[in-house]
Amino acid sequence: MSITLTTIPHIPMITSGDDLARIIADALATCRLALAPSDILVVAQKIVSKSEGQAIKLSEVTPSPRALELAKITQKDPRLVEIILSESVEVVRARPGVIIVRDRRGWVCANAGVDRSNVYQDDPSGETVLRLPVDPDASAARLREGLRERLGIDMGVIVADSHGRPHRNGTIGVAIGAAGLPALEDLRGCPDLFGYTLQHTQVALADLIASAATLLLGQASEGTPVVIVRGVPHTQRDGSAQELVRPIEMDLFP
Amino acid sequence: MSITLTTIPHIPMITSGDDLARIIADALATCRLALAPSDILVVAQKIVSKSEGQAIKLSEVTPSPRALELAKITQKDPRLVEIILSESVEVVRARPGVIIVRDRRGWVCANAGVDRSNVYQDDPSGETVLRLPVDPDASAARLREGLRERLGIDMGVIVADSHGRPHRNGTIGVAIGAAGLPALEDLRGCPDLFGYTLQHTQVALADLIASAATLLLGQASEGTPVVIVRGVPHTQRDGSAQELVRPIEMDLFP
Repeated sequence: MSITLTTIPHIPMITSGDDLARIIADALATCRLALAPSDILVVAQKIVSKSEGQAIKLSEVTPSPRALELAKITQKDPRLVEIILSESVEVVRARPGVIIVRDRRGWVCANAGVDRSNVYQDDPSGETVLRLPVDPDASAARLREGLRERLGIDMGVIVADSHGRPHRNGTIGVAIGAAGLPALEDLRGCPDLFGYTLQHTQVALADLIASAATLLLGQASEGTPVVIVRGVPHTQRDGSAQELVRPIEMDLFP
Repeated sequence: MSITLTTIPHIPMITSGDDLARIIADALATCRLALAPSDILVVAQKIVSKSEGQAIKLSEVTPSPRALELAKITQKDPRLVEIILSESVEVVRARPGVIIVRDRRGWVCANAGVDRSNVYQDDPSGETVLRLPVDPDASAARLREGLRERLGIDMGVIVADSHGRPHRNGTIGVAIGAAGLPALEDLRGCPDLFGYTLQHTQVALADLIASAATLLLGQASEGTPVVIVRGVPHTQRDGSAQELVRPIEMDLFP
């Protein structure tokens, strides 16, 4: 058994309004990579956000009193804090240099995923930041549909981001949007090799694939923002990255 | 750019005292897979633990008063709880059905990684459980050295396990032991595509690779417990999975 991950070359710089399905279909045609319905396309969050116009200039933002207060605690730009708050439902940790939130999509992450790096080549000041897609599952579903229309192939699609996490150092890849594959694969009740029923068998399939692809997406991900993953055993269904959101009241970890 | 993950067939059932380096080298010779020094070998924790004699029968265990108390709270077998406690430095959460600990190796995980499933085909009662390797970094280093002696190739080696995690549903692959590659790749200070200095750039390289391999290791991992990963850009150095342990006092997440 084997799995292959391949970057798609010839993806141009993405700007607001770009049709990602058309651009990716063109790039696939150029590199003559034959696709199969069980292939999974992983796309970096940054180009999805850019194509959807989620960049915003700090100079356009007026911080609220709450943002000013939180900026003081965290020593961050109050305008950036205002954007983070507008993307969040709850601030779960605020310390100098750190804001961890539950974001509007349900993800517990730093800065609500708002990113200063790699935004616009014409704004090296760092004054432009990029928010996550409003609904990354919908972004994945649109991309799946657009690729099905153009290529005649129903592939799984994952929108991947890099997250820090509790208890362990370093970022990993996570799925914030998914379509056409199970984000969470539920193997509870399946017997293991010796007939003993498996216990810990909800597998975060879309996160595993996002982490695998992150080995190629890298951190400066605009260079290679799309990866095709071939050979992952999975069932095809609509799927949603929301399957991976654990409600706070269900969280067993400290 | 591409990455390929390949399972190694012909790995027999592993028992205590088995020489994993010899067994894996033999299996590689059988399947005629040519290796390169930049290849990374991912091995499932279970076969490492088995080869190191980390299986233990519950009937051999006498629970301490503390284990009896914790068993009452968590509704678990007091003998299993005794083993979990002996593997841990701190219990961080105990509820019905759940024990989360900081284990002796530094990992915050359920049941100190002690596992009932897939242990012995001759003990379907579930009375035998498997502890983690005593020092998974040392296990990885021994395997690296053994493969270098037999094959003349210095590969990176990762001992992978499946963990749950806070805030997100489903298990992912993590590295609990590593040798011959950076577990944590520190890109802080590197410029991104547009010259803006990256901020979140400590990448958990060994965890990314462990998650990728977990797509093939599966949950009933004794069937395909070894995966070769080819094409991951990385620098070669001794490395240690301990790079991924975040001390509690440094933990910024709730």
